[in-house]
Amino acid sequence: MRTRLALVPGEPAGIGPELCVRLAQRPPDASLVAYADPDALTAAAAALGLPLRLLDADRDAGPGELALHPIRQARPTRFGQPDPANAPAVIAALRDAGAACLAGELDGLVTGPVHKASINAGGIAYTGTTELLAAQAGVEVVMMLANPRLRVALATTHLPLRAVPDAITRDGVTRTLRILHAALARDFGLSAPPRIAVLGLNPHAGEDGHLGREELDTIIPALDALRAEGLALEGPLPADTAFLPQKLSGYDAVLAMYHDQGLPVLKHSGFEQAVNITLGLPYPRVAVDHGTALDLAGRGVADPSSLFAAAALCARLARHRRSA
Amino acid sequence: MRTRLALVPGEPAGIGPELCVRLAQRPPDASLVAYADPDALTAAAAALGLPLRLLDADRDAGPGELALHPIRQARPTRFGQPDPANAPAVIAALRDAGAACLAGELDGLVTGPVHKASINAGGIAYTGTTELLAAQAGVEVVMMLANPRLRVALATTHLPLRAVPDAITRDGVTRTLRILHAALARDFGLSAPPRIAVLGLNPHAGEDGHLGREELDTIIPALDALRAEGLALEGPLPADTAFLPQKLSGYDAVLAMYHDQGLPVLKHSGFEQAVNITLGLPYPRVAVDHGTALDLAGRGVADPSSLFAAAALCARLARHRRSA
Repeated sequence: MRTRLALVPGEPAGIGPELCVRLAQRPPDASLVAYADPDALTAAAAALGLPLRLLDADRDAGPGELALHPIRQARPTRFGQPDPANAPAVIAALRDAGAACLAGELDGLVTGPVHKASINAGGIAYTGTTELLAAQAGVEVVMMLANPRLRVALATTHLPLRAVPDAITRDGVTRTLRILHAALARDFGLSAPPRIAVLGLNPHAGEDGHLGREELDTIIPALDALRAEGLALEGPLPADTAFLPQKLSGYDAVLAMYHDQGLPVLKHSGFEQAVNITLGLPYPRVAVDHGTALDLAGRGVADPSSLFAAAALCARLARHRRSA
Repeated sequence: MRTRLALVPGEPAGIGPELCVRLAQRPPDASLVAYADPDALTAAAAALGLPLRLLDADRDAGPGELALHPIRQARPTRFGQPDPANAPAVIAALRDAGAACLAGELDGLVTGPVHKASINAGGIAYTGTTELLAAQAGVEVVMMLANPRLRVALATTHLPLRAVPDAITRDGVTRTLRILHAALARDFGLSAPPRIAVLGLNPHAGEDGHLGREELDTIIPALDALRAEGLALEGPLPADTAFLPQKLSGYDAVLAMYHDQGLPVLKHSGFEQAVNITLGLPYPRVAVDHGTALDLAGRGVADPSSLFAAAALCARLARHRRSA
């Protein structure tokens, strides 16, 4: 059976709908089922002058087509102007698509950018799509960013820097690395065991305790216990030298302890094709690694590389998982 | 008069001496005065099979030569094995070279890698060459790393991550930016005013206070006051997107708030030619951006790119300063 992926455009006033229309012209090796308002997709196709035929949700879409699970917006899309009245539709699309993946009706989920402030202005508590999907599935997840050269997973994500050191616990590092290891081994088709570089929390990975004790007290004990289970872990490594190109070639992924330790290198080295992967869900989920770009919406100038890369990767992860 | 630079190899058992011998073969557009033990340099030249003629300190050295201010080691160098008995000679070389620059006898200082543990084992309190030179000169300095594509200065350097948020103060950010601005304008020959990208402390630069308040309470007020004085500052910027190549092209330097926020990108994007520049001293000082590489010492395989880049840049900074 053909791989079938849910496709959620995200904020209808942003570039998400037009990127989905572009993706429909050159679909990945999978059948796409859009969770969106048909009028929003049609408007985006018209704005770009591209063909788009919407099919019933159970149909197998080819180039220029999208199967559609309709989610009606309260108000029509006006490009560049998010409308909080449409927040329920944005969230419903994510929930319905996640539910279909959890039920095994679809094989994976590809999502565009959501406009957090507009969702919150619509009266809906929302901190991020990753968090929403994790809560729906009732699991703990790990965020991993990837481009064609590099994969960076995060031990903590969106925290004030001041809160990071106390958020790095032995249990947390252990759970994160188990999820990361399992996902790399199962979904990415790597030769087992995947090799993971773990960064220290402090500069120079603490320099034997001279620059902080979290490596000695927390990270090293966690790594030692996991190594005894067979995980192939290097570290804790100093962040500034772990990303040297010749060192990176020896790892399948890097685990950074916090957001700004890992993501600047990843985005510097290949932003256009960067994607955001949620590890630990019962299904593969890949998102674009960019925002809603409201200033570009409806003009046909937005770069679709990240959504193309997200869809291609999600299809590949879904196939690996089905054959595992 | 020709530019004259002090050259300090650093740890005699590491790769510093042999890198200096290599540099002597293809000197920068400046005359080099080595502060070292003549036997250590001669041994390195012999190990590499390269010519080396040592001249009196006031002579003008050409290719294959080094003028020498002799600093006698307590014991002969054994490559790969730092001897704490030689710690006083390593420190004396740095102090004498720094003093000559402060006295105006030399125009700048180029330094190789020092082995901190060996200095401390020799009973000398030493946290780093940058700190030693700052204390000797009685000034506050800023550390800036650079490669041919990127300059990254640091608001804080070698602190445990836990100590970073409280170390970011309005006064500190202000003093750092004044030093950085002055050095870029005077020594780097940039069109005035130099354009500086200032990173936030928190992920997404705090996201309007949702991810930390240091941007609102500390960094933004510091930047606003400096802008009123005419400094060209952008920020506070999210670290993960500030390093996108197309954004970097608009800046002369990036100020990162802490070590692992700025240096991974810099080293990832060009480690071999990366150098470490001390801003704020009364003279230009440029160091290699690598360690002593004890495992490579005396074998002639160490890459001299960073020392070559450091010497070339130091000569250029010295010329700009003399013509300013």
